[in-house]
Amino acid sequence: MVEVDPFWVMNVVGLLAFAVAGALKAADAGLDAFGVAVLGVVTALGGGTTRDVLVDRLPASLATLDDMSVALVGVALAIVLIRRLKGRVRDHPLFLTSDAIGLAAFAAAGSLVGVQAGVSPFGIVILGTITGVGGGSIADILIGRVPVVLRDDFYATPAVVGCLGFLVARWLGAPSGVPAGLCAAVVFGLRMFAVRYEWRLPKVRAGS
Amino acid sequence: MVEVDPFWVMNVVGLLAFAVAGALKAADAGLDAFGVAVLGVVTALGGGTTRDVLVDRLPASLATLDDMSVALVGVALAIVLIRRLKGRVRDHPLFLTSDAIGLAAFAAAGSLVGVQAGVSPFGIVILGTITGVGGGSIADILIGRVPVVLRDDFYATPAVVGCLGFLVARWLGAPSGVPAGLCAAVVFGLRMFAVRYEWRLPKVRAGS
Amino acid sequence: MVEVDPFWVMNVVGLLAFAVAGALKAADAGLDAFGVAVLGVVTALGGGTTRDVLVDRLPASLATLDDMSVALVGVALAIVLIRRLKGRVRDHPLFLTSDAIGLAAFAAAGSLVGVQAGVSPFGIVILGTITGVGGGSIADILIGRVPVVLRDDFYATPAVVGCLGFLVARWLGAPSGVPAGLCAAVVFGLRMFAVRYEWRLPKVRAGS
Repeated sequence: MVEVDPFWVMNVVGLLAFAVAGALKAADAGLDAFGVAVLGVVTALGGGTTRDVLVDRLPASLATLDDMSVALVGVALAIVLIRRLKGRVRDHPLFLTSDAIGLAAFAAAGSLVGVQAGVSPFGIVILGTITGVGGGSIADILIGRVPVVLRDDFYATPAVVGCLGFLVARWLGAPSGVPAGLCAAVVFGLRMFAVRYEWRLPKVRAGS
Repeated sequence: MVEVDPFWVMNVVGLLAFAVAGALKAADAGLDAFGVAVLGVVTALGGGTTRDVLVDRLPASLATLDDMSVALVGVALAIVLIRRLKGRVRDHPLFLTSDAIGLAAFAAAGSLVGVQAGVSPFGIVILGTITGVGGGSIADILIGRVPVVLRDDFYATPAVVGCLGFLVARWLGAPSGVPAGLCAAVVFGLRMFAVRYEWRLPKVRAGS
Repeated sequence: MVEVDPFWVMNVVGLLAFAVAGALKAADAGLDAFGVAVLGVVTALGGGTTRDVLVDRLPASLATLDDMSVALVGVALAIVLIRRLKGRVRDHPLFLTSDAIGLAAFAAAGSLVGVQAGVSPFGIVILGTITGVGGGSIADILIGRVPVVLRDDFYATPAVVGCLGFLVARWLGAPSGVPAGLCAAVVFGLRMFAVRYEWRLPKVRAGS
């Protein structure tokens, strides 16, 4: 039987999904084909590069062509899709779904890197969350928007809950791949529910 | 007699003060309770995490729960306070004072880390200044404002002067804790004076 | 005969050119003398510091006073120049030329660091490009603009092509200094042509 590396799976899925989401975001911002490609690649590679810098290893995005190539496939896919969409891309189910897939897959990938780097259980949750929300936040900053992680209560929250699920599954001795799969499923499920039912917390004050 | 670690003191004071300042800033930007908490935590942890990445060590914010817990106490405090404030929070003495305390404590904490990491005297000043201004700058970028360090002449300047005071005190052989305490006192004093008397430099040109 | 270190040359040229470009950008944004100096220094040091963090070495900007001193000379030069310029600085040939020089010199400097750090050929191209576009992108984010690397198709592209030229020259066994010089010449030439003839790609869709 072929043994599949759970990190490899989560990383490829996350790269593809975030490259699509980032490219769609760029189209909304009125960027041209080149800007769309750059924002897609930055969204795909941003979270993982931040994660690798934090745990003090050479970012995978610098070491090999692999991550960049997968991201470019995602960008190409997005450019084909963009022409068929109408209205604001960022309210479109295609964007919201690919963004949720990226968030879920990268939260799992970040948790796996945390285990490998030997950080504390707390550090694993933080690293998984940063890997999940990092790429999209950098992309939002680049196009001058307040990052979704600040505007939407149930963007970082699903990532945190999923990473806690990862820890519990590992602690219960689940076999290889199960903690990561559970993490991704929890993050994706919670995020899509939050988008569908528009969960949100009250404002602290009515503004000034 | 109990020996108190000067870094520990400066770190806890800075985390609390910047968590309060960051959370108040978020309320101004119209974010809800979750956004307020995230911005408070990012403001508190941002400067120290940047500092740790620069001197190539695992960020304290990833290694233990301690820093995050202190930051959350600060956020809770801020949420209680926010309801009592009127008008723009960022002109309120409570915001300006907590921001100055954070700047002062983190400039001292950053200088101490510089000594420990064995960087040059010049590097100590830069590291202390980056630790002081880092968290607030990241928070400003996230909510789409030009960072205070660019808009206000006497934000980075007090940090630089305080870190120079730190170096002089160390060079004169002051006992443990004195250089850090002097640094924090100088930064806080200069910053509060600058705010009170609205010190500023002339513009280079009258704009376009 | 005196042996000149190609990295040293490219680094000094890049620091001076980007300090000028960054300071001019700050004047456009209506910042005062202090903000102009900070933005000039951040533009000059930002790309190299990011590069050093990525390849896991203590940033040169923290290790010695050298880089900061060169950047301050560039800022001083810019402040003298600013008073003589009229209209929007960012359309002025002086800004566009100094920005292109910085892009070219830093793409070469980043490629040389990549060789020294032992990263893959692909990593060398990425590192050279990030070093070239990094400082200006950070500066744009700080003053609240979408970074030029996203808006302008032929900003990152010349850097990528120049770094590929660097690799080819090295592979052909060109003597020390030639690959870096070729890289800088290609980047500068392509960038100036792109600015002069307003090369650009079509938008992916007509906006929303």
